Amino acid sequence: MRYSNLFGKTARDYPKDEVSVNAKYLLKAGFIDKLMAGSYTLLPLGFRVVEKIKQIIREEMDATGANEMLMPLLHPKEIWNETGRWDSAKDIMYQLKKDNKEYGLSFTHEEIVMDLIRKRTQSFKDFPIKIYHFSTKFRDEPRAKSGILRGREFLMKDLYSAHVSEEDLYKYYWEVADAYIKTFKRMGLDAKIVEAGGGVFTKNITHEFQVLSEIGEDTIYYCNSCNFAQNKEIFQGKAGDKCPKCLSAGSRQAGKIIESNSIEVGNIFPLGTMYSEKMGFYFTDSDGSKKPVVLASYGIGSTRVLGTLVELYHDDKGIIWPESVAPYNVYLIAIDNEQKTIVKEADKIYESLTGEGIEILYDDRDVSVGQKFNDADLIGIPIRLVISAKTLRQGSGQAENKIEWKKRTEEKGELISLDEVLNRLKKAQKS
Amino acid sequence: MRYSNLFGKTARDYPKDEVSVNAKYLLKAGFIDKLMAGSYTLLPLGFRVVEKIKQIIREEMDATGANEMLMPLLHPKEIWNETGRWDSAKDIMYQLKKDNKEYGLSFTHEEIVMDLIRKRTQSFKDFPIKIYHFSTKFRDEPRAKSGILRGREFLMKDLYSAHVSEEDLYKYYWEVADAYIKTFKRMGLDAKIVEAGGGVFTKNITHEFQVLSEIGEDTIYYCNSCNFAQNKEIFQGKAGDKCPKCLSAGSRQAGKIIESNSIEVGNIFPLGTMYSEKMGFYFTDSDGSKKPVVLASYGIGSTRVLGTLVELYHDDKGIIWPESVAPYNVYLIAIDNEQKTIVKEADKIYESLTGEGIEILYDDRDVSVGQKFNDADLIGIPIRLVISAKTLRQGSGQAENKIEWKKRTEEKGELISLDEVLNRLKKAQKS
Repeated sequence: MRYSNLFGKTARDYPKDEVSVNAKYLLKAGFIDKLMAGSYTLLPLGFRVVEKIKQIIREEMDATGANEMLMPLLHPKEIWNETGRWDSAKDIMYQLKKDNKEYGLSFTHEEIVMDLIRKRTQSFKDFPIKIYHFSTKFRDEPRAKSGILRGREFLMKDLYSAHVSEEDLYKYYWEVADAYIKTFKRMGLDAKIVEAGGGVFTKNITHEFQVLSEIGEDTIYYCNSCNFAQNKEIFQGKAGDKCPKCLSAGSRQAGKIIESNSIEVGNIFPLGTMYSEKMGFYFTDSDGSKKPVVLASYGIGSTRVLGTLVELYHDDKGIIWPESVAPYNVYLIAIDNEQKTIVKEADKIYESLTGEGIEILYDDRDVSVGQKFNDADLIGIPIRLVISAKTLRQGSGQAENKIEWKKRTEEKGELISLDEVLNRLKKAQKS
Repeated sequence: MRYSNLFGKTARDYPKDEVSVNAKYLLKAGFIDKLMAGSYTLLPLGFRVVEKIKQIIREEMDATGANEMLMPLLHPKEIWNETGRWDSAKDIMYQLKKDNKEYGLSFTHEEIVMDLIRKRTQSFKDFPIKIYHFSTKFRDEPRAKSGILRGREFLMKDLYSAHVSEEDLYKYYWEVADAYIKTFKRMGLDAKIVEAGGGVFTKNITHEFQVLSEIGEDTIYYCNSCNFAQNKEIFQGKAGDKCPKCLSAGSRQAGKIIESNSIEVGNIFPLGTMYSEKMGFYFTDSDGSKKPVVLASYGIGSTRVLGTLVELYHDDKGIIWPESVAPYNVYLIAIDNEQKTIVKEADKIYESLTGEGIEILYDDRDVSVGQKFNDADLIGIPIRLVISAKTLRQGSGQAENKIEWKKRTEEKGELISLDEVLNRLKKAQKS
């Protein structure tokens, strides 16, 4: 992509009410635009990152045997009334009336998915069911100062699984938990599985996937030795305590509890039979008896992940994208000479690398080299390539032309041949 | 995909209020489920078709230099008020109030995209802008009996282009018109470009992309000789008239006007400066003067295309998907023998073809062969492969095992080798 053709350039100004690092950088670098409080447009750069995040999630969810689909966003009041959440979730849910019919906007999909499954199942043979979609969620949250980490309209992957028994549910539940850890790892996020309460969803113990971060709105307590972790709402103790899990396991050296702020990037809920009982949704078991369907739900906030990555990966110059989710692989800059031959060389390199499947953002704007360098750092693409009369002179003849290769994470670049550039990029693509 | 793992099997019953062929077949074959009047879930099969439709649109829009992005669905009243459409579009737009703030749900995005562009442009150098997204639209339409052709919640690709002059606008406008014709052709749709009025969007002449169909809600008049076509609202004449375009071109043999029902699958609007003038959105031209930005918008209803394809491509047994948008390439059926060896053979073929990148729906259910054959016809995947003791016996030895290959469009199958199956499928993939 030629930067001159890209909508959403870097900007000097951004809305003054934005205080979080993620919102500031995403707005300045042209990844998002703000429509209103808690609502952002994904500009082409931000859209590309979210698509890469979604693709990683999709691959890992498919690997668990789940099916992708898409449920509507505008829901009839009647279905939400079956569980009582039309009233109990009134604060968070946008509700409206038109032509004497009442609707709610999706803040989650449990009731809707249960209605769908009950229409399409009868006997134990029809289970388990594992379905997910990427869709928009609307939540009228009290305003936090967290930018895209807490939107009123945001993108989420929500997976639902329906089972004939708790045992079957938990088997899949922990399979998804593993898939979540793998998913986050592929995006560069080291998530902890943290025990939590169920909020408006369930009374069972649920699990959050938390990434340690100073700016996180959540507080978690975790053991520095074992995998014990609980969030603030349910942890009964304080920082510095000996780890209760280590103690109960009889460890001679019990770990110590650490307190940390963190960002919740995912959560999983073993909802059980509450929804099916309230909605009168029973299946026929192998012995002919009627039993309530056992439900679990699993969420990852795709746009929240976008913000989390910026919070974790940035310096004072801008964003530093992990390779797996970077909007492009390479940021290409040409420093032209008086004969205007360098740009022609850069055009050729752009075409040839693009032809090899390398994703390039080619800064072909008529602005100063200084601005291009600054924007390369702000936008945060992993590799910066610079071609100039100076770099070309380093080679011995046309075939040996050199290019400056610099990683966003490193201070200094190195001069390498075009062949070597291609080798390295191909290698990175495969990994 | 093993059919046993697919959510959304074929069903005998469907909601009785559905009278259209598209809704009946899509519901029966397990492509969609109905949430409420005008609102459908895309089940995994339907989701796959819509993703293929989207990918074709995406490739053709990208080829015009447009950038993909994503705008929010919940909009502040203030922006819609700038053009007066908060009031004038009240019938069609879902509006709501929460905590003393008023919002509208996206039925289109002109105002929102103009607000976005005005924040990010200043001078003529920043134009043209070509941006699009796939997003949900909400329209409170009077109920028609057209199934997924006219939803209250549906998916649309909407592209917006902003220009410094009418001349520049129309240059791109006709480029998109060509891209639309190509897009529809790739999906198996032969669309006509039809002149139309602009509804709540503009007073200019706009263009619809209409596919002839008996069940279409629209009526168009077109020439059987030249490319003249107008919709009912603006055509001043009647069926059987001599074509006014042929006449004004001085043709010796003027064509005849044909009247037909048709389905609108896309539309393009040269909106001009009405929106920018009402919204006070002016750019600085090269001579320093301030001029209103010139806008156009371009829509394709992705879920409407899904329904249109079923209306055009079906027989009394079910759907007949064009290859380019079929949910899978192949429907595989094994007719097992007493020794239960055929299924093992089918498993191997399934694994080996899947490994070659062929998309297979493998009907591994424990149901009668008759039901599998019926469901294969109902679901409408282009190629049906059947393996049985009979087909295997036709070959001379293991390497020569034969499989029955039958196209959904043909009555009779033929016995061919696995190598030949793979050759044909690979060839189809490339084309």
